[in-house]
Amino acid sequence: MTIDDRLREAGITLPTLDIPAAAFRPYVLHDRQLIVSGQLPVRDGKALFTGKVPDRVSVSDAQSAARLCVVNILAWAHHATDGNLGRIQKVLRLGGFVATSEGFADAPTVINAASELVTQIFGERGAHARIAIGVASLPLNAPVEVEATFALEP
Amino acid sequence: MTIDDRLREAGITLPTLDIPAAAFRPYVLHDRQLIVSGQLPVRDGKALFTGKVPDRVSVSDAQSAARLCVVNILAWAHHATDGNLGRIQKVLRLGGFVATSEGFADAPTVINAASELVTQIFGERGAHARIAIGVASLPLNAPVEVEATFALEP
Amino acid sequence: MTIDDRLREAGITLPTLDIPAAAFRPYVLHDRQLIVSGQLPVRDGKALFTGKVPDRVSVSDAQSAARLCVVNILAWAHHATDGNLGRIQKVLRLGGFVATSEGFADAPTVINAASELVTQIFGERGAHARIAIGVASLPLNAPVEVEATFALEP
Repeated sequence: MTIDDRLREAGITLPTLDIPAAAFRPYVLHDRQLIVSGQLPVRDGKALFTGKVPDRVSVSDAQSAARLCVVNILAWAHHATDGNLGRIQKVLRLGGFVATSEGFADAPTVINAASELVTQIFGERGAHARIAIGVASLPLNAPVEVEATFALEP
Repeated sequence: MTIDDRLREAGITLPTLDIPAAAFRPYVLHDRQLIVSGQLPVRDGKALFTGKVPDRVSVSDAQSAARLCVVNILAWAHHATDGNLGRIQKVLRLGGFVATSEGFADAPTVINAASELVTQIFGERGAHARIAIGVASLPLNAPVEVEATFALEP
Repeated sequence: MTIDDRLREAGITLPTLDIPAAAFRPYVLHDRQLIVSGQLPVRDGKALFTGKVPDRVSVSDAQSAARLCVVNILAWAHHATDGNLGRIQKVLRLGGFVATSEGFADAPTVINAASELVTQIFGERGAHARIAIGVASLPLNAPVEVEATFALEP
């Protein structure tokens, strides 16, 4: 199965994104390293989830948000590889950040949803290192943010 | 324009820093990768801004602090390249951390000041990936910390 | 002195760890880069320290926790190098995260314990870049988490 097959199987249609005019880039591709900036649970420019976990956003919704972060990561990876995600040799690392309410420390359960989706899409190449950290706040008041690093084929 | 020209144009004089005796290094240069440790808004060994954003430090002051973090990053990059910042081929990634008060989630507006300065100095080579995260606390009670990764010319 | 000698001198016996069935990996080794996932102060599967610093966990205990994170990093590095830590050419970066109580900003004092142990074990090769950040919460309610990046010998 190709990566495009696995995306279809997962019911994921990658959004077509344009590099925004901004002070930074959604990704940098240099030599064979692809670094994708922290992605938020945004679709069509709108934040779909806002608030801390679990007081305002349930763990289950935060997992949906984490998956949406991954979809946006994949969309940028698609852009960076000119539509050929098969050029990705390895997912190296995910940086997972969860805005946690006082008393909640289970960022891993939220970020697992991101890790599982990455593994589902990339198979063995998707086995990655990661951090899963509870933070004070995230852009757009998002409950989750995920950044990613990939190695590309020579 | 050279990078030194752009620094002059931006009114920036890089401080001359000595590697401190410490448990870690301000930067590591290995192969062609330069990793600069998290830098704080410190000048002449003194923290110029302290406290969380926006309760104790305004967003505007936090932006000044973010620019000072970048100046310190550049000073270490200058040290690492024996004074030749032109050896920097690409700014790969900034990690931006803002100590945010409850209810404030706009780390990006603060870190944009760092991103814009990096882009101003390095031009196209300065277009970078990043994260901008709100955290609970930063060393020296700083409002902002920025780390950076660079690729050097072969 | 070999690295094994230095481990003995430091009184450290590395635990033998098995890659757990999980959504991510404790480390990724790709080309010559070894990325170790965020490690917690866990021994034999049990969290030895829980709570924020300094309200629930003293700075001194948090330093012990930081050293235990490093022991787990070393155990995974040992696994990744088939038992030959001498293949590690350079410690590139530590990411240090401390769950801080309101009013405490001294993550560096905690993470210094990790940095010093790394330097003790690897000598000059252990001189590393790092961040030391105060965060809202960490997995298992841990006071400290440390991730690491290494470069391996060609």
